[in-house]
Amino acid sequence: MLRTNNCGELNISNVEQIVTLSGWVQKNRDMGGMTFIDLRDRYGITQLVFNMETNAELCEQARKLGREFVIQVRGLVIERESKNKKISTGEIEIIVDSLTILNKSKTPPFTIEDDTDGGEEIRMKYRYLDLRRNPLKENLMLRNKVGFAVRSYLNKMEFMEVETPYLIKSTPEGARDFVVPSRMNPGTFYALPQSPQTFKQLLMISGYDRYYQMVKCFRDEDLRADRQPEFTQIDCEMSFVEQNDIIEIFEGMAKYVFKEIKNIDFKEDFPRIKYDDAMRLYGSDKPDIRFGMQFVELNDVTQNKGFKVFDDAELVVGICATGAATYSRKVLDKLVKFVQKPQIGAKGLVYVKCNEDGSFKSSVDKFYSQEDLKAWADKVDAKAGDLILVLSGDTDHTRNAMNELRLEMGERLGLRDRNNYAPLWVVDFPLLEWDADNERFHAMHHPFTSPKIDEMHLLETDPGKVHANAYDLVINGVEIGGGSIRIYDKDMQSQMFTHLGFTKEEAQEQFGFLMSAFEYGAPPHGGIALGFDRLVAMFGGTDSIRDYIAFPKNNSGQDVMISSPAGIADGQLEELGLTVNAPEEK
Amino acid sequence: MLRTNNCGELNISNVEQIVTLSGWVQKNRDMGGMTFIDLRDRYGITQLVFNMETNAELCEQARKLGREFVIQVRGLVIERESKNKKISTGEIEIIVDSLTILNKSKTPPFTIEDDTDGGEEIRMKYRYLDLRRNPLKENLMLRNKVGFAVRSYLNKMEFMEVETPYLIKSTPEGARDFVVPSRMNPGTFYALPQSPQTFKQLLMISGYDRYYQMVKCFRDEDLRADRQPEFTQIDCEMSFVEQNDIIEIFEGMAKYVFKEIKNIDFKEDFPRIKYDDAMRLYGSDKPDIRFGMQFVELNDVTQNKGFKVFDDAELVVGICATGAATYSRKVLDKLVKFVQKPQIGAKGLVYVKCNEDGSFKSSVDKFYSQEDLKAWADKVDAKAGDLILVLSGDTDHTRNAMNELRLEMGERLGLRDRNNYAPLWVVDFPLLEWDADNERFHAMHHPFTSPKIDEMHLLETDPGKVHANAYDLVINGVEIGGGSIRIYDKDMQSQMFTHLGFTKEEAQEQFGFLMSAFEYGAPPHGGIALGFDRLVAMFGGTDSIRDYIAFPKNNSGQDVMISSPAGIADGQLEELGLTVNAPEEK
Repeated sequence: MLRTNNCGELNISNVEQIVTLSGWVQKNRDMGGMTFIDLRDRYGITQLVFNMETNAELCEQARKLGREFVIQVRGLVIERESKNKKISTGEIEIIVDSLTILNKSKTPPFTIEDDTDGGEEIRMKYRYLDLRRNPLKENLMLRNKVGFAVRSYLNKMEFMEVETPYLIKSTPEGARDFVVPSRMNPGTFYALPQSPQTFKQLLMISGYDRYYQMVKCFRDEDLRADRQPEFTQIDCEMSFVEQNDIIEIFEGMAKYVFKEIKNIDFKEDFPRIKYDDAMRLYGSDKPDIRFGMQFVELNDVTQNKGFKVFDDAELVVGICATGAATYSRKVLDKLVKFVQKPQIGAKGLVYVKCNEDGSFKSSVDKFYSQEDLKAWADKVDAKAGDLILVLSGDTDHTRNAMNELRLEMGERLGLRDRNNYAPLWVVDFPLLEWDADNERFHAMHHPFTSPKIDEMHLLETDPGKVHANAYDLVINGVEIGGGSIRIYDKDMQSQMFTHLGFTKEEAQEQFGFLMSAFEYGAPPHGGIALGFDRLVAMFGGTDSIRDYIAFPKNNSGQDVMISSPAGIADGQLEELGLTVNAPEEK
Repeated sequence: MLRTNNCGELNISNVEQIVTLSGWVQKNRDMGGMTFIDLRDRYGITQLVFNMETNAELCEQARKLGREFVIQVRGLVIERESKNKKISTGEIEIIVDSLTILNKSKTPPFTIEDDTDGGEEIRMKYRYLDLRRNPLKENLMLRNKVGFAVRSYLNKMEFMEVETPYLIKSTPEGARDFVVPSRMNPGTFYALPQSPQTFKQLLMISGYDRYYQMVKCFRDEDLRADRQPEFTQIDCEMSFVEQNDIIEIFEGMAKYVFKEIKNIDFKEDFPRIKYDDAMRLYGSDKPDIRFGMQFVELNDVTQNKGFKVFDDAELVVGICATGAATYSRKVLDKLVKFVQKPQIGAKGLVYVKCNEDGSFKSSVDKFYSQEDLKAWADKVDAKAGDLILVLSGDTDHTRNAMNELRLEMGERLGLRDRNNYAPLWVVDFPLLEWDADNERFHAMHHPFTSPKIDEMHLLETDPGKVHANAYDLVINGVEIGGGSIRIYDKDMQSQMFTHLGFTKEEAQEQFGFLMSAFEYGAPPHGGIALGFDRLVAMFGGTDSIRDYIAFPKNNSGQDVMISSPAGIADGQLEELGLTVNAPEEK
């Protein structure tokens, strides 16, 4: 080893020891007679001292060391005069007697500090330097720690990790696949898995009972901040279980990881809320329940008073923002603008201020008496000093807009504390979702999800009303994972494909192997998949998964550091039997 | 849960309990008044009893259960009359009082038994049924266990798991890449990684110090039994280390895993042997040292006696097979045939029997006196009763042939016991290897491997003589892993690319990002990659990695279960800007 110790472990108990350290020059301070260097490695920073009086030659050498030089030093650990309480090595420093430059460094294109001066693009190009910065390093250390905790729990619970293949078959259902041309079978393609769904179901049919895998998945979608073409999933499946069993096991996992990572004990069960209720009370299937501010439907107290906007609305819905009656006109105007943003799309926002004197001031005073407004306030449980915010329109859009407004108000009122965690389960999702563009239903979760048996009869008459044995784990408004109890009967699966618009032939061609497997003793089974990138980001307290991935792609799917994707040699194309089409004229 | 217990855990201590079990019907024996069913799950087999006298209806139902039906039963645990000592549940059985058929099964296309009647092809097509068989199930359970042990050790040693990208860039160096067309960047391609080599080196430059990853790698090569297009690597890298440090850490890992998996304690250090010595003594860079039978070079005692074959040979080399002097003419003829096989390619084989009476009988008695043969015997340390086997020719081919013969003799003499493990390190590999086809050198390990500094000067004059800081871990003749200390200096890396026949432009285009990274403070670093599939197969005692992979490909790179690879939709091709070429006329 080119060191006896790392830069994060020496303390007062090591005084008088001769040590060898290796690391990077974080800072070089020439104080005239003395030169101080902060030496950095993965574990921390240790202060090195060079003294002009005792060793002028060495001190001269030290003065010339630039930032990010890699050096090896030997020296004596001594107690520091002015201690730094902020770092674990702050009580000691090293009087260096020997210095070796292991490698030089050019001046980095941005500073390697917690707050850097480098823009996004340059930092992506030099990702290996950006990864030296503490915030990113801590993110990746957190990722490693969360990953190991997850595995430890699942291992303890007798889950077997089984690796499923990456070179599989493309299926047109769902998102777009990345494909891989086969040289040995010209004209044919593998696909990279969007998830190991069918393989994990086959493993249940094989009798493997409790499977997990931390596995890369791939989706060729247009990208945004919280999406990457490749992402990591904690993929799990169990046999001989019902919905409640899976929820219990994975709630246990979440609790275990919270304890390991954050030292938080969740003593109570996570709340469970039905999808329909989540939509009604929060306008979202991933409600942030760190705060209340639930929706209250106000149709009965707002309609038929001559206000046409409300009278014509399918839904009039309000929330009560505690203590916000003092909001100025300017702030209220901002809220109106907020809900009118195109991505939210509300036409307007009605507010009622509940004054301290018991009177009400609203933006619709023309249409509603003080008594009317009192009825609203009673209904939303608003007290003096509170602000009632009301939206109206067709149900889906209004709920969606109110969800955004509620989250915005939660933010404004400081109710979304990053150090407060509020997990819950959303259960009983609808089985099908109407796809207006293609005028057909598609599976809300995926085509292998089982319907609630007692609603099966609605499949023929009112398919949108059928609920599924499907559930999501949501923490602080982020969908961390989702799963379902699967169909394990060939006829039911075949029926489901029909309802999803597959012809018999398509179903057979794409999923024939699975339906065939169902005929050889498929056990009842179900599972869940958790987004590992999101889970780690949630523990890290941010939304951007990119900061928790060592080498992410940009929004064009490119890795600008290695210049990928790129052209390939003509010989490669020829071997694959492919021609790249000429670019189309625009 | 659809069970209170699994089928492997009930024993005499559970007698009198009411339990619910779920599983597969392994066997159904109708004994007239009684019906016995072996119920199977991942954990074991439990015997169920149905009694015609006490519950005729239930017993009738049970009689009709076919093999591989999935059932749920409730019943009373009782002590068995005739105990089965072979299984953990063999002291008890369940008197069933309630039976539910969870799913039926058609008759499987082959029997789900340890020794099945199914051929390779049918078992691959129904892999999910083949995976039900104990041998495969145990292989995958072993894989899970080895994987977790590896992670536990590396975690304890402060290695961080960091995931590197799967969508990277194609480089013409080395084996063929699988490529992935980019829809967002038409005409360009990602490549699937053959290994995360450059990324792990970048992580060292980022200061991450101790990295590991259990990661899928991809090579588009023609396949054989122990090769798969996708395989799993235990990929590791460390900074501030020398060769010896890496060997110590990963020898520690091997010992830890041997202890966890096999309860074997390796108290001594693994032997280390130089590549040149391994070739001289075993004719192989992955010697099986469970037995001796080292090569002895016999040129001095065999040449210039008038036997032209030997006189013309660059190398005459012998081994001593202890106690094999009794081999019949027939067996000796078999050995001659063995070495003459095209894949071994020796012209002939000379033998000398060391008779019990001290005389010698050889296949070249015409040319050599008893005294001559005595000199051979002395040199190879042959005693009365031993057999000396001698091959000759040019050095490389002869060593290679003798390696095969030695392994064959080891097998014949029962010296290659599967339960005996003999690990060793082969060190100091040559840096470069002459590629006769392309008339150039290529990197024996990879282009990032550092040369021995004191041999650097030979790079210009005699490049084949330069050794590298490269090492392999070999167990029982199988290369389990290999690694090297890397180059971390831009100029040296650039020089290396030149020696490997890269132009400056090619080097820059393919590996510019790495050489650029070397300029910003790259620490000394090195690493190792272990073949996880092979490691597990080695613990399982076989060579075929396919039996340790849940869903392997066949020799044509196909998954016949899911019919992959396959054609893709025209729309997909169009989006990717690709045309599949018409098949060429032959």
